[in-house]
Amino acid sequence: MTVQTRPLETPSATNTETFNVGILGASGYGGSGLLRRLQRHPNTEVVGIASRQYVGKPVTACWPQFDPQEFAEDLLFANGDEVVDSCDVLFSAAPHGSVSDLVAKAVRAGKTVIDLAADFRLPASDYKQWYGHDLSHPDVYAQSVYGLVELHREEIKGASFVANPGCNATAGALALLPLAAHGLLGKHTITNIVTGISGAGRSASMGTHFGELNENVIPYKVAGTHRHTAEIELSLGRARAFGKHAQTHTPSHAEVDRPVISFSPHLVPMTRGILASCYTHPETDVLASGERLTTENVLELYHQFYQNDPLITVQEALPTTKATYGSDRVVISVRVDERSGHIVAFAAEDNLGKGAAGQAVQNFNVMQGFDETLGLFTEAVYP
Amino acid sequence: MTVQTRPLETPSATNTETFNVGILGASGYGGSGLLRRLQRHPNTEVVGIASRQYVGKPVTACWPQFDPQEFAEDLLFANGDEVVDSCDVLFSAAPHGSVSDLVAKAVRAGKTVIDLAADFRLPASDYKQWYGHDLSHPDVYAQSVYGLVELHREEIKGASFVANPGCNATAGALALLPLAAHGLLGKHTITNIVTGISGAGRSASMGTHFGELNENVIPYKVAGTHRHTAEIELSLGRARAFGKHAQTHTPSHAEVDRPVISFSPHLVPMTRGILASCYTHPETDVLASGERLTTENVLELYHQFYQNDPLITVQEALPTTKATYGSDRVVISVRVDERSGHIVAFAAEDNLGKGAAGQAVQNFNVMQGFDETLGLFTEAVYP
Amino acid sequence: MTVQTRPLETPSATNTETFNVGILGASGYGGSGLLRRLQRHPNTEVVGIASRQYVGKPVTACWPQFDPQEFAEDLLFANGDEVVDSCDVLFSAAPHGSVSDLVAKAVRAGKTVIDLAADFRLPASDYKQWYGHDLSHPDVYAQSVYGLVELHREEIKGASFVANPGCNATAGALALLPLAAHGLLGKHTITNIVTGISGAGRSASMGTHFGELNENVIPYKVAGTHRHTAEIELSLGRARAFGKHAQTHTPSHAEVDRPVISFSPHLVPMTRGILASCYTHPETDVLASGERLTTENVLELYHQFYQNDPLITVQEALPTTKATYGSDRVVISVRVDERSGHIVAFAAEDNLGKGAAGQAVQNFNVMQGFDETLGLFTEAVYP
Amino acid sequence: MTVQTRPLETPSATNTETFNVGILGASGYGGSGLLRRLQRHPNTEVVGIASRQYVGKPVTACWPQFDPQEFAEDLLFANGDEVVDSCDVLFSAAPHGSVSDLVAKAVRAGKTVIDLAADFRLPASDYKQWYGHDLSHPDVYAQSVYGLVELHREEIKGASFVANPGCNATAGALALLPLAAHGLLGKHTITNIVTGISGAGRSASMGTHFGELNENVIPYKVAGTHRHTAEIELSLGRARAFGKHAQTHTPSHAEVDRPVISFSPHLVPMTRGILASCYTHPETDVLASGERLTTENVLELYHQFYQNDPLITVQEALPTTKATYGSDRVVISVRVDERSGHIVAFAAEDNLGKGAAGQAVQNFNVMQGFDETLGLFTEAVYP
Repeated sequence: MTVQTRPLETPSATNTETFNVGILGASGYGGSGLLRRLQRHPNTEVVGIASRQYVGKPVTACWPQFDPQEFAEDLLFANGDEVVDSCDVLFSAAPHGSVSDLVAKAVRAGKTVIDLAADFRLPASDYKQWYGHDLSHPDVYAQSVYGLVELHREEIKGASFVANPGCNATAGALALLPLAAHGLLGKHTITNIVTGISGAGRSASMGTHFGELNENVIPYKVAGTHRHTAEIELSLGRARAFGKHAQTHTPSHAEVDRPVISFSPHLVPMTRGILASCYTHPETDVLASGERLTTENVLELYHQFYQNDPLITVQEALPTTKATYGSDRVVISVRVDERSGHIVAFAAEDNLGKGAAGQAVQNFNVMQGFDETLGLFTEAVYP
Repeated sequence: MTVQTRPLETPSATNTETFNVGILGASGYGGSGLLRRLQRHPNTEVVGIASRQYVGKPVTACWPQFDPQEFAEDLLFANGDEVVDSCDVLFSAAPHGSVSDLVAKAVRAGKTVIDLAADFRLPASDYKQWYGHDLSHPDVYAQSVYGLVELHREEIKGASFVANPGCNATAGALALLPLAAHGLLGKHTITNIVTGISGAGRSASMGTHFGELNENVIPYKVAGTHRHTAEIELSLGRARAFGKHAQTHTPSHAEVDRPVISFSPHLVPMTRGILASCYTHPETDVLASGERLTTENVLELYHQFYQNDPLITVQEALPTTKATYGSDRVVISVRVDERSGHIVAFAAEDNLGKGAAGQAVQNFNVMQGFDETLGLFTEAVYP
Repeated sequence: MTVQTRPLETPSATNTETFNVGILGASGYGGSGLLRRLQRHPNTEVVGIASRQYVGKPVTACWPQFDPQEFAEDLLFANGDEVVDSCDVLFSAAPHGSVSDLVAKAVRAGKTVIDLAADFRLPASDYKQWYGHDLSHPDVYAQSVYGLVELHREEIKGASFVANPGCNATAGALALLPLAAHGLLGKHTITNIVTGISGAGRSASMGTHFGELNENVIPYKVAGTHRHTAEIELSLGRARAFGKHAQTHTPSHAEVDRPVISFSPHLVPMTRGILASCYTHPETDVLASGERLTTENVLELYHQFYQNDPLITVQEALPTTKATYGSDRVVISVRVDERSGHIVAFAAEDNLGKGAAGQAVQNFNVMQGFDETLGLFTEAVYP
Repeated sequence: MTVQTRPLETPSATNTETFNVGILGASGYGGSGLLRRLQRHPNTEVVGIASRQYVGKPVTACWPQFDPQEFAEDLLFANGDEVVDSCDVLFSAAPHGSVSDLVAKAVRAGKTVIDLAADFRLPASDYKQWYGHDLSHPDVYAQSVYGLVELHREEIKGASFVANPGCNATAGALALLPLAAHGLLGKHTITNIVTGISGAGRSASMGTHFGELNENVIPYKVAGTHRHTAEIELSLGRARAFGKHAQTHTPSHAEVDRPVISFSPHLVPMTRGILASCYTHPETDVLASGERLTTENVLELYHQFYQNDPLITVQEALPTTKATYGSDRVVISVRVDERSGHIVAFAAEDNLGKGAAGQAVQNFNVMQGFDETLGLFTEAVYP
């Protein structure tokens, strides 16, 4: 098996512009992840952070992990409107539905916007089906690009509004994209996900109580009822129709036939991390190349598919979530179960990294033409 | 939906016999679970415990959880041979392969034996295929019954040698048995399991290191390579061929056509607990009764199937492993994913309870005609 | 060193009375622990359970760990008033301050009452000092006995109202009582406690969020500001003044000189368990017996002090909380740090066992003259 | 209270030298922490990594957290001798005692050396007392400086051999140094530490088994028997004799009177993190300034003491370990318990950060005149 070495993009030494950045939802886990990355990004300055609960207070009133000295003394939590007004680039990590008007306002004002919520991720009919009401701002949705960089990089370049994918949708799609692109997705595809609790946000409920989650596995929104199902099916349909962006432009809003998957997530007692275990039974047992369907050969397809994606590591060893803890990488592997005829694909990510803030900053980098990993973490905290 | 009330069996007040019990592998997690249950069982007295490592020492030299006063002063760890000689009933919780000669000796001597290891669980050809070598004692295997009580209760009654099922095999089979029995198992069946670490035993390795497992999900022996796959397929095949034991005798050694499943286990950061999430795409969308395939109707099939099984709780709410922590119950539920046509079945158990020592004592009770739950724990430690 | 064997009390075969029991706060962790023990207690029948939130619903609507079949079909959550009216024995596990009127009403009605809250644990002046307001019912307080069985067993026998000690107060006092009784408490005594989260109850807050507590140690109410400080000081003062109840009656309401301790608790990422590490610098380096202050000799004092206490295990090995998980035992050891002159005493308990529901049922047993461990768990779930 | 703002040192833009670095013990947790920091340090290139177990293999054969592309293709594990020969700067993170000859060889060869093991931390007599045998290389010890930067920064500048402090010793000393320097250390000082498991290294044992540590608190080497006791007492003695380095040179090898402390560590179920809770009863109740001993006033002393230490955050809020997870900061606070007369000081650190690899790289930076935080992490991964 030949693993092609990925040509790392040269950091763009030329773009030395500094952007004034604002963050909505800065008191949530997504928001703190943005702060962590944008504070160290060489081309951004955080000029505004919004959170109703902490207005007038400094970052460290909300977050204990930062050195107080690393923030300007006058950087205090403010209202969302003020933050939108003061920034050139807006990251929104506020909960779904809570600030779609503000995001729409920023987009209409021509600002660069990356939205981590679900408000602008789906076409109107899907949105209605999965979220139970109409798109709040169809005109703004029309300007969005779905920010799964590994599928839509070309379209994201130069875009000014990106809807950042959901955490489960990111892992679930990345695990299966190469199969979809190579016609290896069968009729019956299963996405089984286990996830840490931080995806549920920082607000307290019985579901986030340590005493209830420790030593527990909790399935929830199973059997195709979780909203991220739609995102995964859309991405797989686009990959099946258009293939990898490198070969052909893969439009993020294209109407395509989509596979139906059965997706079931489960909470496990950890803070961060998603492992997607995906099962499909392909209609064929030979590859387009004529080679047999073996673990080695399918793994090679994955290597090729992701060879130019700096945040994706395809490897023979099975991925573990701890290898991504605190980082923005996704680790992927695949097996052929020759007894049963299934392909089993695994993707591990940090749901707050590539699953949220990391992917948002990656999108920003691609939008601006920066090196894709600027400000990101390509290594995990281990153990 | 009518949920039939299960007629609880009356404790057998008549059988007041006390059995002298010996335990092999008493310094392992399975062994300590046996001790916990057999010390409180009204009809057993533990007269021998074996562990090479602790010979001559009391229980509390190995296990901190017991009150030293609860054991006879002269109950010390001994060699396996001595324990076998001194007991009428032998429970073996020693690792696979380590004591099959001793177990065979006890069976041949006419003792009552329950073996928690895998040595006598599979027919000769399966054993060779999955374990890489021949059955050690085919004549002893011939006398065994596979101890999945909910499938083979009638055969276990009066048996003198039971091979206790594997922990994954127990959860994986129990989740799907009703579907197999009702012709609802499709061609492509997935068993995705997450499990705590205690199933790996008490011996130390990098794989059991807290620093490596905490905040981690670790897939292992995936894609149909785990040995418990054979046990699950056999049980499903038998249920498909013969149905529930209550309707017809279901022989544990019958040669039957078996479904092929794709089984993948994953370690998650907890000590105890298994959650099996099983996916199958049935060939039909109506039940034998003519009713539609809906969650409500399939759930009703499960209620009926397990109505006389005191350790099985079928419920509408999704099961969680913490509801079984320290107990011998299995909690089961099922969903129909109408979008994709899959049935998704969930079973939660404590891998050291119904998955090991609890099921072993359940088998002993059935063998002797005791109330099936004597000495067992039907409630969990929560939270 | 001679360890005297404890003469286990014979279970009182004569008292076959069955008590109708009611539980206030049955939807909290303390309440579920009472249910777990009282359902298996041979002399109690749970006839009423109260929780505002679950009125009209069955036990399993609130708690997943129980087998639905183990409860009478008509046992539904009710209002506190109804429960008090219907029972002969009342256990109250409702939060501090929430039901003191109901508890007072039950006491005045002559019912047997065990209150797990803090409302009646302290004399008027202490209560005012630590809780900031007056005792709600001084007349009812006057009828109470402080339920630390190992110190006040004689007084509890025959009492009809017991105030069950706090979880930290139980571990903190038991670790040091033998030193207090033998004049070995120095001027400067430190009680450092680490505890699991379940002591904070089941209600959700940022402090109980898994994401905030996992991989964390959180000191809180440190440096003598935690209210359990008063309970510990009172118990130590009484032990210093009167010694062990076996030698002399130790009244739980006596006014005595008390030592001042500095107590600091810390949350650690676990569900159950308290470890108290207590440091004192005695004024002397010889024991009353004339022997030197060594680990061996002090350990012998502990053995003697607790020789007739069935829930206390004194041992040479350092105690660990996991040895008490799900159980009602307390494991205690002690060391002399000869370099610094300190005695360091350790006590491990399950905060929901001996620290709450277990001690409450122990008190009930002593009040009624039952075997002290009826319905209790003397062994832990391990691992 | 006036909190003086710390004048951050300007990064040394002038020193652009790149050092060839070798790492012994690179397959351990300390070693991987060095890799994580030195790979991103602008002035270092890792040219050699040693580990007997992995000779000839790449970094990713041992560590899953790194992106394979971030290492030179020819960076393979090698033997210690080769690594020492190839480097200018040697970091040794091998276990205590295992490579002291190699370290000595490197020091004698004039290389810059930072040793994370205990071999060269203590004077000959202390070493003999606590480690049970003689210093292996007294001449090399004589050239060492004890690398607690906050106490010995002046001496470390320009040193070529630094013995990096132990993890417990770092937290335990930093919590109390200001009290020692201001004459507020009483006769009886307690250091109670809770720690994650990673300090025990990556090798497997029953003590590191997830099933044994989860839901557990395990005291070990308590009551002044842990070897780090000597380091803490030495540092406190030096601070008491000489005060903060800023005011006067504080020699790391000075013979001074030392306080005796009673130190007891406890394992808790987490991977990273140390919280030191330190109790002392000062002989006075007024400060040198004449002010009363209050929390506010003592906190002000701490602020002043650490005002020029970039890795120390003194704050009013109690520190938590999670605020340091994956970072090199230490968070410190203090309380006066006015009832008992104790001062209680708290320090939180990541035992693998400031407690190991972070402090080692900090020492390297100080030795070379770089900005003290180059390559370090001043913010934690949270949650």
